[in-house]
Amino acid sequence: METNGLTMIFTGNGKGKTTSALGLAFRALGHGFPVCIIQFIKGSWKYGELESAKRFEDLLDFHVMGKGFTWKSENLEEDIKAAREAWEFASKTILAGKHRLVILDELTYLIQYDMVPEEEILAVLRQKPQEMHVVITGRGASQGLVDFADLVTEMTEIKHPYQKGIKAQKGIEF
Amino acid sequence: METNGLTMIFTGNGKGKTTSALGLAFRALGHGFPVCIIQFIKGSWKYGELESAKRFEDLLDFHVMGKGFTWKSENLEEDIKAAREAWEFASKTILAGKHRLVILDELTYLIQYDMVPEEEILAVLRQKPQEMHVVITGRGASQGLVDFADLVTEMTEIKHPYQKGIKAQKGIEF
Repeated sequence: METNGLTMIFTGNGKGKTTSALGLAFRALGHGFPVCIIQFIKGSWKYGELESAKRFEDLLDFHVMGKGFTWKSENLEEDIKAAREAWEFASKTILAGKHRLVILDELTYLIQYDMVPEEEILAVLRQKPQEMHVVITGRGASQGLVDFADLVTEMTEIKHPYQKGIKAQKGIEF
Repeated sequence: METNGLTMIFTGNGKGKTTSALGLAFRALGHGFPVCIIQFIKGSWKYGELESAKRFEDLLDFHVMGKGFTWKSENLEEDIKAAREAWEFASKTILAGKHRLVILDELTYLIQYDMVPEEEILAVLRQKPQEMHVVITGRGASQGLVDFADLVTEMTEIKHPYQKGIKAQKGIEF
């Protein structure tokens, strides 16, 4: 039986976008599927998952792009260059078809900040190998991405611990 | 430094609730934290994560309660009995304090279907060890749970592959 790879988006302002992608990786790895995680923004993946990832070295490729964006650079041209290089790497990874699941963590920002044109990203997604699942995370997924995707979940923050003055907790948020 | 354990809820009708909990487990395990996952509904955790979990046997306890609910039973009394037993196990696990993260997967249904009183569950959550994080997943989290929790994310389904006639995919949904 042929299986159809899905394009999935986790968006919205709430917690759980990157965490959901991580959960999907965990599930796919359990099936013995090769998984590639590409992180477009520096620091969105933390110590905890990087350590856990080591137990799946046989199946999991983990890439932090360039220095990653921090959105704090004062050099816009440099940011755009880094974003383009990151996208080119992701694009090659998708078209190479070596993985069954490719996670594009925080990709949405590249479109949102006009770093890479939406149409260029959609063109690659349309050519992805049939069996490959692609997961895109990040706030403010563009309409074109939403239209293209098979599954879109919006995470809405109803209540957040920082509102109560609680600090970020080791093992949960990093 | 003392750390404060958080109570987190992933609720709503969208995908990503159990998957987010799984991602948090992955992160916490990477820190070497003992994790306990208690599954209240049969089949909400699938082959993929069960296989991946084997790579963390030193840290991860995984419990499927009784036969698990299927909500297809015609014997309501038996269902209530199973739900109560499951909750009592969870309650003991929380109070024992052996784990740094306890995931109560699909717990919300126990309250929703009047299997276990909300107040009884809240009473245990109030007594949880200070450093322990608790994650509750499931649709329709009750107001009392939401009020108690530190972090609540609602997953909203914007688009689902079944709407497009695509079947559930191995490695992603199971």
